[in-house]
Amino acid sequence: MMKRFFITIAFCLAAISLVNAQELANFQRGGGRVVSPDIQGDSVTFNFRADYATQVKLSGSWMPNPYGGTVDMVRGANNVWSVKLPLPSPEIYTYNFVVDGVSVNDPQNILVQRDGTRFLNMLIVPGERTANYVEANQRGTVSHPWYDSKVLGINRRLTVYTPYGYENNPKKKYPVLYLLHGAGGDEEAWISMGRTAQILDNLIEKGLAEPMIVVMPNGNANQQAAVTLNIPNAPQQQMDRNALQSLPEAERMRRQNGYVVSLCEEIVPFIEKNFRVIAKPEARAIAGLSMGGGHTITASNMYPEMFDYICPLSAAGSSTAEQVATLKKAGVKLYFLACGDADFLFEGSKTLDKTLTEQGLDHIFYVSDGGHVWANWRLYLNTFAPMLFK
Amino acid sequence: MMKRFFITIAFCLAAISLVNAQELANFQRGGGRVVSPDIQGDSVTFNFRADYATQVKLSGSWMPNPYGGTVDMVRGANNVWSVKLPLPSPEIYTYNFVVDGVSVNDPQNILVQRDGTRFLNMLIVPGERTANYVEANQRGTVSHPWYDSKVLGINRRLTVYTPYGYENNPKKKYPVLYLLHGAGGDEEAWISMGRTAQILDNLIEKGLAEPMIVVMPNGNANQQAAVTLNIPNAPQQQMDRNALQSLPEAERMRRQNGYVVSLCEEIVPFIEKNFRVIAKPEARAIAGLSMGGGHTITASNMYPEMFDYICPLSAAGSSTAEQVATLKKAGVKLYFLACGDADFLFEGSKTLDKTLTEQGLDHIFYVSDGGHVWANWRLYLNTFAPMLFK
Repeated sequence: MMKRFFITIAFCLAAISLVNAQELANFQRGGGRVVSPDIQGDSVTFNFRADYATQVKLSGSWMPNPYGGTVDMVRGANNVWSVKLPLPSPEIYTYNFVVDGVSVNDPQNILVQRDGTRFLNMLIVPGERTANYVEANQRGTVSHPWYDSKVLGINRRLTVYTPYGYENNPKKKYPVLYLLHGAGGDEEAWISMGRTAQILDNLIEKGLAEPMIVVMPNGNANQQAAVTLNIPNAPQQQMDRNALQSLPEAERMRRQNGYVVSLCEEIVPFIEKNFRVIAKPEARAIAGLSMGGGHTITASNMYPEMFDYICPLSAAGSSTAEQVATLKKAGVKLYFLACGDADFLFEGSKTLDKTLTEQGLDHIFYVSDGGHVWANWRLYLNTFAPMLFK
Repeated sequence: MMKRFFITIAFCLAAISLVNAQELANFQRGGGRVVSPDIQGDSVTFNFRADYATQVKLSGSWMPNPYGGTVDMVRGANNVWSVKLPLPSPEIYTYNFVVDGVSVNDPQNILVQRDGTRFLNMLIVPGERTANYVEANQRGTVSHPWYDSKVLGINRRLTVYTPYGYENNPKKKYPVLYLLHGAGGDEEAWISMGRTAQILDNLIEKGLAEPMIVVMPNGNANQQAAVTLNIPNAPQQQMDRNALQSLPEAERMRRQNGYVVSLCEEIVPFIEKNFRVIAKPEARAIAGLSMGGGHTITASNMYPEMFDYICPLSAAGSSTAEQVATLKKAGVKLYFLACGDADFLFEGSKTLDKTLTEQGLDHIFYVSDGGHVWANWRLYLNTFAPMLFK
């Protein structure tokens, strides 16, 4: 028996020391013991080894104009280029290096988010603002089920978050937040850039939010899944403008808002069939950013009885007095409208706030600093999630 | 109503044309209409815009020595650097560019896989060999549940694949394949590099494999989740060598194989409780590569009644005659042993094959070309999955 035992150990050591072939090559290229980003006190240093570069810059989302500036890095010992900067205020920022004009990720930083077709490194500056953006101790499950959409004629990917304890409480039913992304995003945007799983995990662990399911669909009507999956988009549905205008209002709305119809008539039933869900308006919330804020508004107007919690964020959309009156009659429990005061859509949100006020629909108009950025959407989610289902 | 309608349209157009702020910045940096990689007939051209670089190379996994060589790219119009190469034989290869000595991903290629801490672009060469590595029409669900491990004292992340139709057939129960990664990998390795979801989707859609659930745990006993989640590892469990040697054999095995104990006594019950599973040996398979092949062998020896299908791949591990005899008695339905003839662990696989033959345990010894690489592990999964549960 001992011989077998030592043979096993020998094999394991061989495997561990050689790792696997492809990973070995990576370690060799990794560049030694460079640490980056290196947060010390109130400064942060970025380090990057580049033996033959003539110029290395740091491009960071917190630097001025327009959406991320650059700063020169300086070559030091062992061709490690560095720059030490004051630590920006607590938030999640993105950055990359620019080596002789080419954008490069930081090979020392495993924290990466995907924005459309780009992978960007994250700098998470610790503080009260970001306390819920890092991993909690008790974590929920993220899954990617697909649903067959008859409305859109394609098989479509969802992201679904179920809270910690879902598996261990087989009789418990949960409320559901439908959380919608913006133009250029997909069903992973709220997970990757929005830190939804971390935010919900933390809020629930701290007892600040009700345990809830969060459903994040793909809001591009012709897209089956995030572009990383390499699945062709369906053709854009062409609509004859005159034919469309001749349709009755309700039918025209359906034709023009295929994704919203699919959300409310296909995704909601799919979730309520396949997850342990409280299938009532008081246990359904809808929220979305930018284009997804428009979807939120459209969904609440087309299906006023469906969602008792409505949260348009930096929304591209508005509502008529008549639509708001209908919503009020339907008995909305929370209308949380949020926008940054530097957002190019701020005027639209102010108009919607005015209409809501005029129609006497109780609501919150949450105005933050800043513009049309994920820093705000994370803040809004962290702010309104505790108000849901209470 | 028309006014509201046009306001909505105007907001939507504004949002779409400006996209969101962060994505806009990406498009500006994207570099125009460069296409890469560009497969035409029997050649492939890589194109990369680098305005200020003095040298650009292509590093590809299919090039000679040791695990991916490099070839020079040539600067052309608009500072687009290019190289045209003969198309390698059908397979999934990885590559990146090397710009003045720095590794850079191809910004035009959204196909990316993660190998440990590195993101590498994929080149998928079409052909019979790769037909099951691309997206099928009907796709299963990938989820990431967590289980609390009492054995290891941490909360641990799993990857679970459920086949297409799982949601629509609420009374159907499925067999389960437990699929284990190698050293340096994690619970996403088989999904990211192994293309498990695509392979199973295709095999099931073509009627070649039984619809099955695939469970991919994290095989690093002190790791809660993939490094991308930035969750600290638990301390390595220190074992006093003398104390260990004084333990009875069975207890020593448990202490030395905490992950395997957790797999068989915690993960299997977790899956059988939370998924619709046929909870019988004839509906359980275990397979793993390299270190995971060692885990496969150890699990089948420690729990000989648990799995009727056993598939060690390029395995770091072996079995005694006595252990094989025990397995034979337990009634194994398939023992599929696979290794590349250039693998540094090939001798170990030949030894195990010999022991299996000597003990009269019916098995397949599947010997492929090549070494310790994902090209082989994808091939093995695509080969043995159709043999399971039949």
